[in-house]
Amino acid sequence: MNIITIARQFGSGGRSIGRELSQRLGIPCYDKEFVKKVALETGFDEKFIEDRGEHVQVGAWFGSGLGAHSMAGSQSIEDFLWSVQSKIILDLAEKGPCIIIGRCASYLLRNRSDVISAFIHAPVEDRAKRIVKLYGESDVKPEKRLEEKDKKRKLYWLHYTGLEWGASENYDICLNSSKLGIEGCVNILERLGKGES
Amino acid sequence: MNIITIARQFGSGGRSIGRELSQRLGIPCYDKEFVKKVALETGFDEKFIEDRGEHVQVGAWFGSGLGAHSMAGSQSIEDFLWSVQSKIILDLAEKGPCIIIGRCASYLLRNRSDVISAFIHAPVEDRAKRIVKLYGESDVKPEKRLEEKDKKRKLYWLHYTGLEWGASENYDICLNSSKLGIEGCVNILERLGKGES
Repeated sequence: MNIITIARQFGSGGRSIGRELSQRLGIPCYDKEFVKKVALETGFDEKFIEDRGEHVQVGAWFGSGLGAHSMAGSQSIEDFLWSVQSKIILDLAEKGPCIIIGRCASYLLRNRSDVISAFIHAPVEDRAKRIVKLYGESDVKPEKRLEEKDKKRKLYWLHYTGLEWGASENYDICLNSSKLGIEGCVNILERLGKGES
Repeated sequence: MNIITIARQFGSGGRSIGRELSQRLGIPCYDKEFVKKVALETGFDEKFIEDRGEHVQVGAWFGSGLGAHSMAGSQSIEDFLWSVQSKIILDLAEKGPCIIIGRCASYLLRNRSDVISAFIHAPVEDRAKRIVKLYGESDVKPEKRLEEKDKKRKLYWLHYTGLEWGASENYDICLNSSKLGIEGCVNILERLGKGES
């Protein structure tokens, strides 16, 4: 397999798995680097792209219509970002082996036979501990932060793909990173990436 | 890990994976053998248990109430089978390493740390070919047979566990047997069963 896409619940360690896998397989991992590419192409700020590039702005977006976000013509900023991101992902896949984190890459590349799509998840209690360790405390309880971020990713997936984020049938492999360990998940994906089974 | 539970979409090869895994790990695989145990305990016919032991009888059950199926007191046959099956699964898990196919075993054993729960799925077109090859043609189109059986399993899960059958977060590992191959799935689960990662 040439390409591995990694979708992930917030705090499940999906990003860490992608980075470690990138080292082991010696292929690029697009995550932050991806955001830079989109920034370069669109002129938008990186932070803005991180916020809007895989999250539906609940309320603002669905609630009050698209008026406030409209670009030239009637395209919303989200739709504009979606089209730029989609094009970049399809281009990256053409360039050669890589790992792509999030951004509906598994959906966009679903018709390529050289892609393995993974989804990483973990129980809420473990993810709560992980995000506090990684990103520190905030005014909002970690469980609430998880719920909000996952909800946004779920809505984003549903809106742009019509499919359910996290439903096993939308991925080739789904892994519980608490049960199998970050290292265990990397090992499984490394073998698949090398075409071993 | 001592115990591997395998839930599966109809025609995904989950049962074949369980049997091959059983050979390789040298531990029993409860599937047909399980049905025999339930038959022995309840006096019901094996065919009857296969039909009712992990399927909701849509319409008959939800539609017309439980009256027609009531056992002593107000317990339905399905509830009676559920309680017998649950007890047998919990007992089997106590006895030692094994593989259990279907019957909500991953849910029943969710609090044991020595269990790996797997879900096997595959695209409809591949499963349709597989069931025709394994079970032959019937008056009903294979896609329709898949849809009906999966729907019944989904409803059964929802009714007895309150959870969604096939949602990745309800399993430790979910595998697309078409993409990864039956052999590939067995290899991954064999390593997990041996405690390798």
